[in-house]
Amino acid sequence: MALIVQKYGGSSVGTIERIENVARKVIASRDAGNQVVVVVSAMKGETDRLTELARAAAQTDHPRPRELDLLLSTGETVTITLLTMVLERLGASARCYTGAQVGIRTDSAFSKARIQEIDNRFIQGDLDAGRIVVVAGFQGVDERGSITTLGRGGSDTTAVALAAALSADECQIYTDVDGVYTTDPRVVPTARRLDRITFEEMLELASLGSKVLQIRAVEFAGKYHVPLRVLSSFEDGPGTLITMEGADMPQGSMEEPLIAGIAFNRDEAKLTVLGVPDTPGIAAGILGPIAAANIEVDMIVQNISNEGLTDFTFTVHKNDYDRAMDILRKQAESLGALEVFGNKSITKLSLVGVGMRSHAGVASRMFDTLAAEGINIQMISTSEIKISVVVDEKYLELGTRALHRAFELDDEEGNTVTVEGEG
Amino acid sequence: MALIVQKYGGSSVGTIERIENVARKVIASRDAGNQVVVVVSAMKGETDRLTELARAAAQTDHPRPRELDLLLSTGETVTITLLTMVLERLGASARCYTGAQVGIRTDSAFSKARIQEIDNRFIQGDLDAGRIVVVAGFQGVDERGSITTLGRGGSDTTAVALAAALSADECQIYTDVDGVYTTDPRVVPTARRLDRITFEEMLELASLGSKVLQIRAVEFAGKYHVPLRVLSSFEDGPGTLITMEGADMPQGSMEEPLIAGIAFNRDEAKLTVLGVPDTPGIAAGILGPIAAANIEVDMIVQNISNEGLTDFTFTVHKNDYDRAMDILRKQAESLGALEVFGNKSITKLSLVGVGMRSHAGVASRMFDTLAAEGINIQMISTSEIKISVVVDEKYLELGTRALHRAFELDDEEGNTVTVEGEG
Repeated sequence: MALIVQKYGGSSVGTIERIENVARKVIASRDAGNQVVVVVSAMKGETDRLTELARAAAQTDHPRPRELDLLLSTGETVTITLLTMVLERLGASARCYTGAQVGIRTDSAFSKARIQEIDNRFIQGDLDAGRIVVVAGFQGVDERGSITTLGRGGSDTTAVALAAALSADECQIYTDVDGVYTTDPRVVPTARRLDRITFEEMLELASLGSKVLQIRAVEFAGKYHVPLRVLSSFEDGPGTLITMEGADMPQGSMEEPLIAGIAFNRDEAKLTVLGVPDTPGIAAGILGPIAAANIEVDMIVQNISNEGLTDFTFTVHKNDYDRAMDILRKQAESLGALEVFGNKSITKLSLVGVGMRSHAGVASRMFDTLAAEGINIQMISTSEIKISVVVDEKYLELGTRALHRAFELDDEEGNTVTVEGEG
Repeated sequence: MALIVQKYGGSSVGTIERIENVARKVIASRDAGNQVVVVVSAMKGETDRLTELARAAAQTDHPRPRELDLLLSTGETVTITLLTMVLERLGASARCYTGAQVGIRTDSAFSKARIQEIDNRFIQGDLDAGRIVVVAGFQGVDERGSITTLGRGGSDTTAVALAAALSADECQIYTDVDGVYTTDPRVVPTARRLDRITFEEMLELASLGSKVLQIRAVEFAGKYHVPLRVLSSFEDGPGTLITMEGADMPQGSMEEPLIAGIAFNRDEAKLTVLGVPDTPGIAAGILGPIAAANIEVDMIVQNISNEGLTDFTFTVHKNDYDRAMDILRKQAESLGALEVFGNKSITKLSLVGVGMRSHAGVASRMFDTLAAEGINIQMISTSEIKISVVVDEKYLELGTRALHRAFELDDEEGNTVTVEGEG
């Protein structure tokens, strides 16, 4: 008998009818011989409603975090009771628990608490008694008994943490997409659902803007070796399994693919400091004040020194561009820079795949492909399993589609994906 | 410094604006030098909304009680967080607790749990630190950690129980009326607000249909000698103090009044079994099957035996009348009754007052007054501090007003009360 932890998000439990749909999926999994623990989020819209009430009460966008967390936690508590009632109505034996009741102990960092330990005795007892266990996602309790929340999307983390604590065979995250795709199907209609992907690849794809899963949940799953599967709440299908590299590869399976997917990010802007003296500490001199202003920097490129002067380029979120430019301009004189300029009309394209570790030539094939389309590369940055380039934002679709084809990611049967839902 | 427990019901916290009004009252009490603990209900309409969700999920009017209690408890949890946010915004230091967090331990009788003990350490610590403490009413936690509720209106009970546990100087119940009246001002416009009333009198008035306070809360307050005060959430005023008989009577106060108030109940119906053999066990033979059907019986009158036959009359809630009549008819033969009949067009009028204990003549003055108005008395029942009569329901207003005048309960200044609100 396998132990499965399933997680359903807010839109999957947004109405009583949808909760019934969830209950049927849960019961089907149990009927297939599994023990099932279900983690649910607040009904879609509920967290926003509660947040609005808090804003009205506190008359600020930042109500007191201890009270706000307690308030928001009621959203998931409502869902667990309703799902349990529906499960029982459909003939299943079920029991629900809040985060505090099931012993999800966190630190006291309200609104972004971290799970410290989980007491799995209750759940194991219920599972042994043949019950389906329903747990409120997103919430825990600190050592003083105050209710905490894990931050938006924290229900994924709850599910993975429970799966780890229970040594579950699989943690299934049900969403409004039916898996992880080679790239965004809205940009590349021939994008293909991946049957499996590694944690590292998923992290790179997620951090590059793929919103299927919380990064924290993926990190957590990787750390505790919890097999994670992304599936659709609304259609049947195998989804995408996220596993350790090479783990559980089926007998006779193909060689690991070179590239798992292509991510893009249109939210970045780049800034260049031209002609600064190439002396030790110059990078810190430029980026120190940026970091001090709490602006996150993504790519950093420094060109080779030419006559003792060097050029320095980095990217930030578009929202931070104006602040970053102000800081740079104020510093230009003390840095001895010739010029400071920037560009918000860029996009970042990234190839991600553990396969590129052992394959030469991925970078050159990438550059060739872009060149063949007449796309100029403005920046390049590489890591073990990722190559990112910055190009003019007008090339986002053209570049992504060309790379998708060049690395043979297109759906073999020529199917195209229709995208609906919340995006 | 006095320690005051205040309780505000659902309509008093029905909107953010009303919660602000509550916060100002709480702060005013603190500024007057009191330590204040506030107990609040769910925002008006919230419990109904949650109950509807449960019905839709469970597709029955009786969802599973453990889950229903957990669901309903979220209503009060929302209110405590919002009130605390408002208090802090208005400059007061405050902290809120759910029933479980503050250690309100109950038995496991979901939906009608009884409080077993309260751990007052948290609250006392906060009060000592100068904080206002906000506690969710209506809810507690059983020994297994399941959330329980005390039943509708249980927030009054929470407030009284907290007041007892903290040895509070007064428990103030804020409602949409400004106190306890000599009778319903909608029937008798000259009804007068009572400055004080005894627990016993309040119990008799409450159980007779006066809906100001939960009976359980009054019993609790009486048992633990907690002075209870009923006040208006919406206007200033001293309200009505409910105390032990004779306790704290002000120096030079008037003699205890003969009658505290007049209650009436139009929700009862009477049933009569005529001409049954007057043998031992006949009352049990008639009422046993009624009780077995879970029908509550209020007044019971058996006439004197006449030629070995007796008449037996009792009252039940109008909603139970048809069921009770069915049961009686089926039994009539085995009981040897001559006839079974009933009447739903009745009302019960009751005089209540601890003063009648030591005064003869209350009953005769009551009967004389009704006779003078041509009102026929169908049943009479008496207790130490109460005399009840059943009359035709058309005499409800006439009878109540005549008695109110005869027992000198009219407002001395001839003021009449305007009644608004929920009734």
